[in-house]
Amino acid sequence: MTGPAGGSGGQPVGQVWVVGLGPGASEWRTPEVDSILRRASDLVGYQTYLDMVAPGPAGQRRHASDNREEAARAAAALDLAAAGRTVAVVSSGDPGVFAMAAAVMEQLARDDAPPGWAAVEVTVTPGITAAQGAAARAGAPLGHDFAVVSLSDNLKPWATVERRLDAAAGADFVLALYNPVSRHRPWQLGRALDIISGHRDDSTPVVVGRDVGRPAEEVGIVALGELDQARVDMRTVLVIGSSTTAMIERPGHPRQVYTPRSYPAR
Amino acid sequence: MTGPAGGSGGQPVGQVWVVGLGPGASEWRTPEVDSILRRASDLVGYQTYLDMVAPGPAGQRRHASDNREEAARAAAALDLAAAGRTVAVVSSGDPGVFAMAAAVMEQLARDDAPPGWAAVEVTVTPGITAAQGAAARAGAPLGHDFAVVSLSDNLKPWATVERRLDAAAGADFVLALYNPVSRHRPWQLGRALDIISGHRDDSTPVVVGRDVGRPAEEVGIVALGELDQARVDMRTVLVIGSSTTAMIERPGHPRQVYTPRSYPAR
Repeated sequence: MTGPAGGSGGQPVGQVWVVGLGPGASEWRTPEVDSILRRASDLVGYQTYLDMVAPGPAGQRRHASDNREEAARAAAALDLAAAGRTVAVVSSGDPGVFAMAAAVMEQLARDDAPPGWAAVEVTVTPGITAAQGAAARAGAPLGHDFAVVSLSDNLKPWATVERRLDAAAGADFVLALYNPVSRHRPWQLGRALDIISGHRDDSTPVVVGRDVGRPAEEVGIVALGELDQARVDMRTVLVIGSSTTAMIERPGHPRQVYTPRSYPAR
Repeated sequence: MTGPAGGSGGQPVGQVWVVGLGPGASEWRTPEVDSILRRASDLVGYQTYLDMVAPGPAGQRRHASDNREEAARAAAALDLAAAGRTVAVVSSGDPGVFAMAAAVMEQLARDDAPPGWAAVEVTVTPGITAAQGAAARAGAPLGHDFAVVSLSDNLKPWATVERRLDAAAGADFVLALYNPVSRHRPWQLGRALDIISGHRDDSTPVVVGRDVGRPAEEVGIVALGELDQARVDMRTVLVIGSSTTAMIERPGHPRQVYTPRSYPAR
Protein backbone atom coordinates (compact mmCIF):
# COMPACT_ATOMS: atom_id res chain seq x y z
CA MET A 1 0.00 0.00 0.00
CA THR A 2 1.26 3.41 -0.92
CA GLY A 3 0.74 6.00 1.79
CA PRO A 4 -0.24 9.52 0.98
CA ALA A 5 2.74 11.10 2.71
CA GLY A 6 5.65 12.34 0.61
CA GLY A 7 8.85 10.39 0.98
CA SER A 8 7.14 7.20 2.11
CA GLY A 9 7.19 5.54 -1.26
CA GLY A 10 4.30 7.42 -2.84
CA GLN A 11 4.61 10.02 -5.54
CA PRO A 12 6.32 13.31 -4.71
CA VAL A 13 4.09 15.73 -2.85
CA GLY A 14 4.25 19.45 -3.35
CA GLN A 15 3.32 22.59 -1.56
CA VAL A 16 0.64 25.24 -1.70
CA TRP A 17 1.55 28.76 -0.64
CA VAL A 18 -1.30 31.24 -0.39
CA VAL A 19 0.15 34.68 -1.00
CA GLY A 20 -1.17 38.24 -1.21
CA LEU A 21 0.26 40.91 -3.46
CA GLY A 22 -0.89 43.70 -1.17
CA PRO A 23 -3.10 46.45 -2.55
CA GLY A 24 -1.02 46.74 -5.71
CA ALA A 25 2.16 48.75 -5.30
CA SER A 26 5.27 46.56 -5.30
CA GLU A 27 6.68 48.72 -2.48
CA TRP A 28 3.92 47.24 -0.26
CA ARG A 29 4.55 43.62 -1.25
CA THR A 30 6.53 41.60 1.27
CA PRO A 31 9.91 40.06 0.37
CA GLU A 32 8.48 36.69 1.39
CA VAL A 33 5.81 36.92 -1.30
CA ASP A 34 8.33 37.98 -3.93
CA SER A 35 10.52 35.03 -2.98
CA ILE A 36 7.66 32.55 -3.25
CA LEU A 37 6.58 33.95 -6.61
CA ARG A 38 10.09 33.38 -7.91
CA ARG A 39 10.30 29.83 -6.54
CA ALA A 40 6.88 28.41 -7.33
CA SER A 41 6.53 25.99 -10.23
CA ASP A 42 2.93 27.13 -10.76
CA LEU A 43 0.94 30.30 -10.13
CA VAL A 44 -2.81 29.97 -9.70
CA GLY A 45 -5.06 33.01 -9.56
CA TYR A 46 -7.46 35.48 -11.01
CA GLN A 47 -6.09 36.81 -14.30
CA THR A 48 -5.97 40.43 -13.06
CA TYR A 49 -3.72 39.47 -10.15
CA LEU A 50 -1.45 37.22 -12.20
CA ASP A 51 -0.96 40.16 -14.56
CA MET A 52 0.53 42.08 -11.61
CA VAL A 53 3.29 39.46 -11.16
CA ALA A 54 6.56 39.86 -13.09
CA PRO A 55 7.57 36.94 -15.31
CA GLY A 56 9.00 34.07 -13.27
CA PRO A 57 11.71 31.52 -14.02
CA ALA A 58 11.65 29.55 -17.25
CA GLY A 59 9.09 26.77 -17.03
CA GLN A 60 6.91 28.42 -14.41
CA ARG A 61 3.29 27.81 -15.38
CA ARG A 62 0.39 30.20 -14.89
CA HIS A 63 -3.19 29.06 -14.40
CA ALA A 64 -5.53 32.02 -14.71
CA SER A 65 -9.21 31.85 -13.87
CA ASP A 66 -12.29 33.94 -13.46
CA ASN A 67 -12.59 35.87 -10.20
CA ARG A 68 -15.75 34.05 -9.12
CA GLU A 69 -14.37 30.52 -9.27
CA GLU A 70 -12.56 30.56 -5.93
CA ALA A 71 -13.45 27.03 -4.84
CA ALA A 72 -12.45 25.52 -8.18
CA ARG A 73 -9.21 27.51 -8.17
CA ALA A 74 -8.35 26.32 -4.66
CA ALA A 75 -9.05 22.71 -5.60
CA ALA A 76 -6.93 23.02 -8.75
CA ALA A 77 -4.02 24.32 -6.68
CA LEU A 78 -4.27 21.37 -4.28
CA ASP A 79 -4.44 18.95 -7.22
CA LEU A 80 -1.27 20.43 -8.68
CA ALA A 81 0.52 20.17 -5.34
CA ALA A 82 -0.64 16.59 -4.88
CA ALA A 83 1.08 15.86 -8.19
CA GLY A 84 4.33 17.27 -6.85
CA ARG A 85 4.16 20.87 -7.99
CA THR A 86 4.97 23.87 -5.79
CA VAL A 87 2.02 26.17 -6.20
CA ALA A 88 1.46 29.82 -5.28
CA VAL A 89 -2.20 30.79 -5.02
CA VAL A 90 -2.15 34.50 -5.75
CA SER A 91 -4.57 36.96 -4.08
CA SER A 92 -4.46 40.69 -3.82
CA GLY A 93 -4.24 42.28 -0.39
CA ASP A 94 -3.82 39.90 2.52
CA PRO A 95 -4.90 36.44 1.36
CA GLY A 96 -6.25 35.83 4.86
CA VAL A 97 -8.72 38.73 4.73
CA PHE A 98 -11.74 38.09 2.48
CA ALA A 99 -9.48 36.29 0.03
CA MET A 100 -8.11 32.95 -1.07
CA ALA A 101 -6.70 31.51 2.18
CA ALA A 102 -10.14 30.60 3.53
CA ALA A 103 -11.15 29.20 0.14
CA VAL A 104 -8.14 26.86 0.17
CA MET A 105 -8.81 25.81 3.77
CA GLU A 106 -12.46 25.09 2.92
CA GLN A 107 -11.29 22.69 0.25
CA LEU A 108 -8.83 21.00 2.62
CA ALA A 109 -11.63 20.52 5.14
CA ARG A 110 -14.04 18.87 2.68
CA ASP A 111 -15.35 15.48 3.81
CA ASP A 112 -14.79 14.24 0.27
CA ALA A 113 -11.33 15.77 -0.15
CA PRO A 114 -9.28 13.64 -2.55
CA PRO A 115 -6.81 11.35 -0.72
CA GLY A 116 -3.96 12.87 -2.71
CA TRP A 117 -4.37 16.16 -0.85
CA ALA A 118 -3.65 14.60 2.53
CA ALA A 119 0.10 15.12 2.34
CA VAL A 120 0.07 18.58 0.75
CA GLU A 121 1.45 21.28 2.99
CA VAL A 122 -0.55 24.52 2.88
CA THR A 123 1.17 27.70 4.06
CA VAL A 124 -0.45 31.13 4.23
CA THR A 125 1.62 34.32 4.13
CA PRO A 126 0.30 37.70 5.26
CA GLY A 127 0.03 40.83 3.14
CA ILE A 128 -1.05 44.44 3.41
CA THR A 129 -4.82 44.59 3.04
CA ALA A 130 -6.71 47.41 1.33
CA ALA A 131 -7.97 49.03 4.54
CA GLN A 132 -4.40 49.39 5.79
CA GLY A 133 -3.30 51.06 2.58
CA ALA A 134 -6.24 53.46 2.57
CA ALA A 135 -5.80 54.19 6.27
CA ALA A 136 -2.11 54.97 5.85
CA ARG A 137 -2.75 57.33 2.95
CA ALA A 138 -5.31 59.18 5.07
CA GLY A 139 -3.41 59.27 8.37
CA ALA A 140 -4.32 56.96 11.25
CA PRO A 141 -8.06 56.19 11.28
CA LEU A 142 -7.43 52.61 12.52
CA GLY A 143 -5.50 53.83 15.55
CA HIS A 144 -8.13 52.51 17.94
CA ASP A 145 -10.47 49.48 18.04
CA PHE A 146 -11.99 48.70 14.64
CA ALA A 147 -14.18 46.17 12.86
CA VAL A 148 -13.78 44.85 9.33
CA VAL A 149 -16.96 43.88 7.47
CA SER A 150 -17.60 42.73 3.93
CA LEU A 151 -20.87 44.11 2.59
CA SER A 152 -21.15 41.25 0.13
CA ASP A 153 -24.19 39.09 0.74
CA ASN A 154 -23.21 36.57 -1.91
CA LEU A 155 -22.16 34.06 0.75
CA LYS A 156 -23.84 35.34 3.90
CA PRO A 157 -27.36 36.53 4.66
CA TRP A 158 -27.84 40.28 4.43
CA ALA A 159 -29.42 40.12 7.90
CA THR A 160 -26.03 39.04 9.27
CA VAL A 161 -24.36 42.04 7.66
CA GLU A 162 -26.95 44.35 9.19
CA ARG A 163 -26.60 42.79 12.61
CA ARG A 164 -22.83 43.19 12.56
CA LEU A 165 -22.89 46.76 11.31
CA ASP A 166 -25.42 47.71 13.96
CA ALA A 167 -23.42 46.03 16.73
CA ALA A 168 -20.07 47.46 15.69
CA ALA A 169 -21.35 50.97 15.02
CA GLY A 170 -23.33 50.88 18.26
CA ALA A 171 -20.22 49.99 20.24
CA ASP A 172 -18.37 52.85 18.54
CA PHE A 173 -15.87 50.82 16.56
CA VAL A 174 -14.20 52.36 13.55
CA LEU A 175 -15.55 50.39 10.58
CA ALA A 176 -13.64 49.22 7.52
CA LEU A 177 -16.06 48.16 4.79
CA TYR A 178 -14.97 45.82 2.01
CA ASN A 179 -16.87 44.98 -1.18
CA PRO A 180 -19.20 47.93 -0.65
CA VAL A 181 -20.91 47.74 -4.05
CA SER A 182 -21.06 45.58 -7.12
CA ARG A 183 -23.20 45.48 -10.23
CA HIS A 184 -25.37 42.81 -8.62
CA ARG A 185 -25.46 44.47 -5.18
CA PRO A 186 -26.58 48.04 -5.83
CA TRP A 187 -28.60 48.90 -2.70
CA GLN A 188 -26.60 47.31 0.11
CA LEU A 189 -24.24 50.25 0.65
CA GLY A 190 -27.11 52.69 1.13
CA ARG A 191 -28.72 50.43 3.67
CA ALA A 192 -25.38 49.97 5.49
CA LEU A 193 -24.84 53.71 5.65
CA ASP A 194 -28.34 54.18 7.04
CA ILE A 195 -27.55 51.75 9.87
CA ILE A 196 -24.21 53.36 10.63
CA SER A 197 -25.70 56.87 10.47
CA GLY A 198 -28.09 55.82 13.23
CA HIS A 199 -25.04 55.73 15.53
CA ARG A 200 -22.85 58.51 14.09
CA ASP A 201 -22.94 62.25 13.49
CA ASP A 202 -23.05 63.42 9.89
CA SER A 203 -19.66 65.01 10.46
CA THR A 204 -17.94 61.65 11.10
CA PRO A 205 -14.86 61.37 8.85
CA VAL A 206 -14.97 58.71 6.15
CA VAL A 207 -11.95 57.59 4.15
CA VAL A 208 -12.86 56.63 0.60
CA GLY A 209 -9.98 54.66 -0.90
CA ARG A 210 -10.19 53.55 -4.52
CA ASP A 211 -7.47 51.57 -6.28
CA VAL A 212 -5.19 52.24 -3.32
CA GLY A 213 -1.57 51.45 -4.16
CA ARG A 214 -2.28 51.36 -7.89
CA PRO A 215 -1.68 53.97 -10.58
CA ALA A 216 -5.32 55.10 -10.52
CA GLU A 217 -5.32 55.59 -6.73
CA GLU A 218 -7.79 58.10 -5.29
CA VAL A 219 -8.10 58.60 -1.55
CA GLY A 220 -10.56 61.14 -0.23
CA ILE A 221 -11.72 62.11 3.24
CA VAL A 222 -15.31 63.30 3.48
CA ALA A 223 -17.94 63.73 6.16
CA LEU A 224 -20.36 60.82 6.48
CA GLY A 225 -23.27 63.13 5.65
CA GLU A 226 -21.57 64.17 2.40
CA LEU A 227 -20.47 60.77 1.13
CA ASP A 228 -21.40 60.44 -2.52
CA GLN A 229 -22.35 56.80 -3.04
CA ALA A 230 -21.92 57.19 -6.78
CA ARG A 231 -18.16 57.47 -6.18
CA VAL A 232 -18.01 54.08 -4.43
CA ASP A 233 -17.49 50.96 -6.52
CA MET A 234 -16.16 47.43 -6.09
CA ARG A 235 -12.56 48.65 -6.08
CA THR A 236 -13.27 50.96 -3.15
CA VAL A 237 -12.69 50.37 0.54
CA LEU A 238 -14.36 52.64 3.09
CA VAL A 239 -13.11 53.46 6.58
CA ILE A 240 -15.80 55.10 8.68
CA GLY A 241 -14.68 56.80 11.85
CA SER A 242 -15.84 56.28 15.42
CA SER A 243 -17.24 59.13 17.51
CA THR A 244 -13.67 60.18 18.36
CA THR A 245 -12.16 60.08 14.87
CA ALA A 246 -11.08 63.58 13.88
CA MET A 247 -9.89 65.44 10.82
CA ILE A 248 -6.73 67.50 10.68
CA GLU A 249 -6.84 70.46 8.30
CA ARG A 250 -3.53 72.27 7.83
CA PRO A 251 -2.98 74.97 5.19
CA GLY A 252 -0.84 73.61 2.38
CA HIS A 253 -1.41 69.96 3.28
CA PRO A 254 -4.01 67.40 2.24
CA ARG A 255 -6.65 66.73 4.85
CA GLN A 256 -5.73 63.92 7.27
CA VAL A 257 -7.72 61.87 9.75
CA TYR A 258 -6.94 59.94 12.92
CA THR A 259 -8.58 58.06 15.74
CA PRO A 260 -7.00 59.03 19.07
CA ARG A 261 -5.47 56.35 21.26
CA SER A 262 -7.46 57.56 24.23
CA TYR A 263 -11.20 57.26 24.68
CA PRO A 264 -13.20 59.53 26.98
CA ALA A 265 -14.93 58.20 30.07
CA ARG A 266 -18.68 58.72 29.89
CA MET B 1 6.98 88.07 7.74
CA THR B 2 8.25 84.58 7.27
CA GLY B 3 5.55 82.06 6.39
CA PRO B 4 5.57 78.58 7.84
CA ALA B 5 5.73 76.82 4.47
CA GLY B 6 9.04 75.41 3.28
CA GLY B 7 10.56 77.19 0.30
CA SER B 8 8.86 80.50 1.09
CA GLY B 9 11.85 82.07 2.74
CA GLY B 10 11.65 80.26 6.08
CA GLN B 11 14.06 77.65 7.30
CA PRO B 12 14.15 74.29 5.52
CA VAL B 13 11.32 71.99 6.56
CA GLY B 14 11.66 68.26 6.78
CA GLN B 15 9.51 65.22 6.74
CA VAL B 16 8.11 62.70 9.19
CA TRP B 17 7.49 59.17 7.97
CA VAL B 18 5.69 56.84 10.35
CA VAL B 19 6.77 53.32 9.55
CA GLY B 20 6.08 49.83 10.89
CA LEU B 21 8.61 47.02 10.89
CA GLY B 22 5.90 44.36 10.79
CA PRO B 23 5.83 41.68 13.48
CA GLY B 24 9.58 41.21 13.31
CA ALA B 25 10.76 39.04 10.43
CA SER B 26 12.46 41.05 7.70
CA GLU B 27 10.64 38.91 5.12
CA TRP B 28 7.40 40.60 6.29
CA ARG B 29 8.77 44.15 6.15
CA THR B 30 7.72 46.14 3.10
CA PRO B 31 10.30 47.47 0.62
CA GLU B 32 8.87 50.95 1.23
CA VAL B 33 9.82 50.78 4.90
CA ASP B 34 13.30 49.52 4.13
CA SER B 35 13.76 52.37 1.67
CA ILE B 36 12.64 55.00 4.18
CA LEU B 37 14.91 53.56 6.89
CA ARG B 38 17.85 53.92 4.52
CA ARG B 39 16.96 57.49 3.53
CA ALA B 40 15.97 59.05 6.84
CA SER B 41 18.39 61.39 8.56
CA ASP B 42 16.95 60.43 11.95
CA LEU B 43 15.24 57.39 13.42
CA VAL B 44 12.96 57.92 16.41
CA GLY B 45 11.53 55.01 18.36
CA TYR B 46 11.42 52.64 21.25
CA GLN B 47 14.87 51.12 21.79
CA THR B 48 13.69 47.56 21.16
CA TYR B 49 12.38 48.49 17.71
CA LEU B 50 15.43 50.54 16.74
CA ASP B 51 17.55 47.51 17.61
CA MET B 52 15.68 45.61 14.88
CA VAL B 53 16.84 48.08 12.21
CA ALA B 54 20.14 47.48 10.40
CA PRO B 55 22.73 50.27 10.59
CA GLY B 56 21.86 53.12 8.23
CA PRO B 57 24.01 55.50 6.23
CA ALA B 58 26.85 57.37 7.86
CA GLY B 59 25.51 60.28 9.85
CA GLN B 60 22.06 58.82 10.43
CA ARG B 61 21.05 59.60 14.01
CA ARG B 62 19.03 57.39 16.32
CA HIS B 63 16.82 58.71 19.11
CA ALA B 64 15.74 55.89 21.37
CA SER B 65 13.18 56.26 24.10
CA ASP B 66 11.12 54.37 26.58
CA ASN B 67 8.08 52.54 25.21
CA ARG B 68 5.63 54.54 27.32
CA GLU B 69 6.64 57.98 26.10
CA GLU B 70 4.70 57.93 22.87
CA ALA B 71 3.50 61.53 22.94
CA ALA B 72 6.94 62.90 23.75
CA ARG B 73 8.50 60.75 21.04
CA ALA B 74 6.00 61.99 18.46
CA ALA B 75 6.63 65.61 19.43
CA ALA B 76 10.39 65.10 19.23
CA ALA B 77 10.04 63.71 15.72
CA LEU B 78 8.00 66.74 14.63
CA ASP B 79 10.56 69.08 16.20
CA LEU B 80 13.37 67.39 14.29
CA ALA B 81 11.42 67.65 11.02
CA ALA B 82 10.62 71.30 11.68
CA ALA B 83 14.37 71.84 11.90
CA GLY B 84 14.81 70.34 8.44
CA ARG B 85 15.52 66.70 9.27
CA THR B 86 13.89 63.71 7.55
CA VAL B 87 12.63 61.56 10.35
CA ALA B 88 11.36 57.98 10.46
CA VAL B 89 9.22 57.21 13.50
CA VAL B 90 9.68 53.47 13.96
CA SER B 91 6.89 51.20 15.24
CA SER B 92 6.52 47.48 15.13
CA GLY B 93 3.60 45.97 13.21
CA ASP B 94 1.44 48.40 11.29
CA PRO B 95 2.07 51.89 12.71
CA GLY B 96 -1.60 52.66 12.03
CA VAL B 97 -2.90 49.89 14.31
CA PHE B 98 -2.49 50.63 18.05
CA ALA B 99 0.87 52.24 17.32
CA MET B 100 2.69 55.47 16.60
CA ALA B 101 0.69 56.92 13.68
CA ALA B 102 -2.18 58.05 15.90
CA ALA B 103 0.29 59.40 18.47
CA VAL B 104 1.93 61.59 15.81
CA MET B 105 -1.46 62.77 14.50
CA GLU B 106 -2.54 63.66 18.04
CA GLN B 107 0.46 65.93 18.34
CA LEU B 108 -0.23 67.54 14.97
CA ALA B 109 -3.80 68.25 16.06
CA ARG B 110 -2.83 69.96 19.32
CA ASP B 111 -4.29 73.42 19.78
CA ASP B 112 -0.91 74.53 21.08
CA ALA B 113 1.13 72.83 18.38
CA PRO B 114 4.38 74.76 17.78
CA PRO B 115 4.17 76.98 14.68
CA GLY B 116 7.26 75.26 13.30
CA TRP B 117 5.28 72.05 12.78
CA ALA B 118 2.82 73.66 10.39
CA ALA B 119 4.89 72.95 7.29
CA VAL B 120 6.06 69.45 8.24
CA GLU B 121 4.72 66.75 5.98
CA VAL B 122 3.62 63.61 7.84
CA THR B 123 3.31 60.38 5.85
CA VAL B 124 2.17 57.04 7.25
CA THR B 125 3.14 53.75 5.63
CA PRO B 126 1.32 50.47 6.27
CA GLY B 127 2.83 47.30 7.70
CA ILE B 128 1.87 43.76 8.59
CA THR B 129 0.24 43.80 12.01
CA ALA B 130 0.59 41.03 14.60
CA ALA B 131 -2.88 39.57 14.08
CA GLN B 132 -2.16 39.06 10.40
CA GLY B 133 1.06 37.24 11.14
CA ALA B 134 -0.55 35.00 13.73
CA ALA B 135 -3.54 34.35 11.47
CA ALA B 136 -1.33 33.37 8.54
CA ARG B 137 0.70 30.97 10.68
CA ALA B 138 -2.52 29.31 11.83
CA GLY B 139 -4.39 29.23 8.51
CA ALA B 140 -7.20 31.66 7.74
CA PRO B 141 -9.10 32.63 10.91
CA LEU B 142 -9.65 36.20 9.61
CA GLY B 143 -11.33 34.98 6.44
CA HIS B 144 -14.65 36.50 7.44
CA ASP B 145 -15.77 39.65 9.29
CA PHE B 146 -13.60 40.41 12.31
CA ALA B 147 -13.06 43.00 15.03
CA VAL B 148 -9.76 44.19 16.47
CA VAL B 149 -9.74 45.28 20.11
CA SER B 150 -6.97 46.35 22.44
CA LEU B 151 -7.57 45.11 25.98
CA SER B 152 -5.46 47.90 27.40
CA ASP B 153 -7.42 50.23 29.62
CA ASN B 154 -4.51 52.61 30.09
CA LEU B 155 -6.13 55.15 27.74
CA LYS B 156 -9.76 54.05 27.60
CA PRO B 157 -12.26 53.07 30.26
CA TRP B 158 -12.53 49.35 30.89
CA ALA B 159 -16.29 49.69 30.45
CA THR B 160 -15.67 50.64 26.82
CA VAL B 161 -13.60 47.50 26.29
CA GLU B 162 -16.36 45.37 27.80
CA ARG B 163 -19.03 47.02 25.70
CA ARG B 164 -17.06 46.43 22.51
CA LEU B 165 -16.21 42.82 23.31
CA ASP B 166 -19.83 42.09 24.14
CA ALA B 167 -21.12 43.74 20.96
CA ALA B 168 -18.57 42.10 18.66
CA ALA B 169 -18.84 38.65 20.21
CA GLY B 170 -22.62 38.93 20.26
CA ALA B 171 -22.68 39.73 16.53
CA ASP B 172 -20.42 36.71 15.91
CA PHE B 173 -17.35 38.56 14.73
CA VAL B 174 -13.99 36.84 14.89
CA LEU B 175 -12.03 38.79 17.51
CA ALA B 176 -8.37 39.77 17.40
CA LEU B 177 -7.21 40.88 20.85
CA TYR B 178 -4.14 43.07 21.28
CA ASN B 179 -2.34 43.91 24.52
CA PRO B 180 -4.14 41.10 26.34
CA VAL B 181 -2.09 41.28 29.54
CA SER B 182 0.58 43.36 31.18
CA ARG B 183 2.15 43.50 34.60
CA HIS B 184 -0.21 46.30 35.55
CA ARG B 185 -3.28 44.75 33.91
CA PRO B 186 -3.48 41.22 35.30
CA TRP B 187 -7.24 40.58 35.45
CA GLN B 188 -8.54 42.13 32.25
CA LEU B 189 -7.96 39.08 30.04
CA GLY B 190 -9.96 36.81 32.32
CA ARG B 191 -12.86 39.23 32.33
CA ALA B 192 -12.67 39.58 28.53
CA LEU B 193 -12.74 35.81 28.09
CA ASP B 194 -15.75 35.58 30.39
CA ILE B 195 -17.64 38.03 28.19
CA ILE B 196 -16.67 36.27 24.98
CA SER B 197 -17.48 32.85 26.45
CA GLY B 198 -20.99 34.10 27.04
CA HIS B 199 -21.41 34.10 23.25
CA ARG B 200 -19.22 31.17 22.19
CA ASP B 201 -18.94 27.42 22.69
CA ASP B 202 -15.97 26.15 24.68
CA SER B 203 -14.80 24.40 21.51
CA THR B 204 -14.29 27.69 19.62
CA PRO B 205 -10.78 27.74 18.13
CA VAL B 206 -8.38 30.33 19.52
CA VAL B 207 -5.05 31.23 17.94
CA VAL B 208 -2.41 32.13 20.52
CA GLY B 209 0.45 33.90 18.76
CA ARG B 210 3.50 34.91 20.76
CA ASP B 211 6.52 36.68 19.28
CA VAL B 212 5.11 36.00 15.83
CA GLY B 213 7.72 36.57 13.13
CA ARG B 214 10.56 36.58 15.66
CA PRO B 215 13.03 33.85 16.59
CA ALA B 216 11.07 32.91 19.72
CA GLU B 217 7.80 32.54 17.78
CA GLU B 218 5.16 30.21 19.22
CA VAL B 219 1.76 29.85 17.60
CA GLY B 220 -0.78 27.49 19.09
CA ILE B 221 -4.39 26.67 18.34
CA VAL B 222 -6.51 25.68 21.32
CA ALA B 223 -10.17 25.46 22.22
CA LEU B 224 -11.54 28.50 24.04
CA GLY B 225 -12.43 26.33 27.03
CA GLU B 226 -8.84 25.11 27.29
CA LEU B 227 -7.01 28.41 26.90
CA ASP B 228 -4.32 28.68 29.56
CA GLN B 229 -4.18 32.35 30.53
CA ALA B 230 -0.76 31.83 32.09
CA ARG B 231 0.63 31.36 28.57
CA VAL B 232 -0.61 34.79 27.43
CA ASP B 233 1.61 37.81 27.95
CA MET B 234 2.11 41.28 26.50
CA ARG B 235 3.88 39.87 23.44
CA THR B 236 0.88 37.69 22.61
CA VAL B 237 -1.95 38.35 20.20
CA LEU B 238 -5.13 36.27 20.39
CA VAL B 239 -7.51 35.49 17.55
CA ILE B 240 -10.78 34.04 18.84
CA GLY B 241 -13.02 32.39 16.28
CA SER B 242 -16.64 33.07 15.43
CA SER B 243 -19.29 30.37 15.65
CA THR B 244 -18.26 29.15 12.19
CA THR B 245 -14.48 29.07 12.68
CA ALA B 246 -13.27 25.48 12.36
CA MET B 247 -10.12 23.46 12.98
CA ILE B 248 -8.49 21.25 10.40
CA GLU B 249 -6.65 18.23 11.80
CA ARG B 250 -4.65 16.24 9.27
CA PRO B 251 -2.25 13.44 10.23
CA GLY B 252 1.33 14.61 9.80
CA HIS B 253 0.46 18.31 9.72
CA PRO B 254 0.14 20.97 12.39
CA ARG B 255 -3.42 21.85 13.29
CA GLN B 256 -4.87 24.67 11.19
CA VAL B 257 -7.91 26.89 11.56
CA TYR B 258 -10.13 28.87 9.21
CA THR B 259 -13.30 30.91 9.11
CA PRO B 260 -15.39 29.97 6.07
CA ARG B 261 -16.33 32.63 3.56
CA SER B 262 -19.95 31.62 3.77
CA TYR B 263 -22.25 32.13 6.73
CA PRO B 264 -25.37 30.03 7.34
CA ALA B 265 -28.83 31.54 7.20
CA ARG B 266 -30.64 31.23 10.51
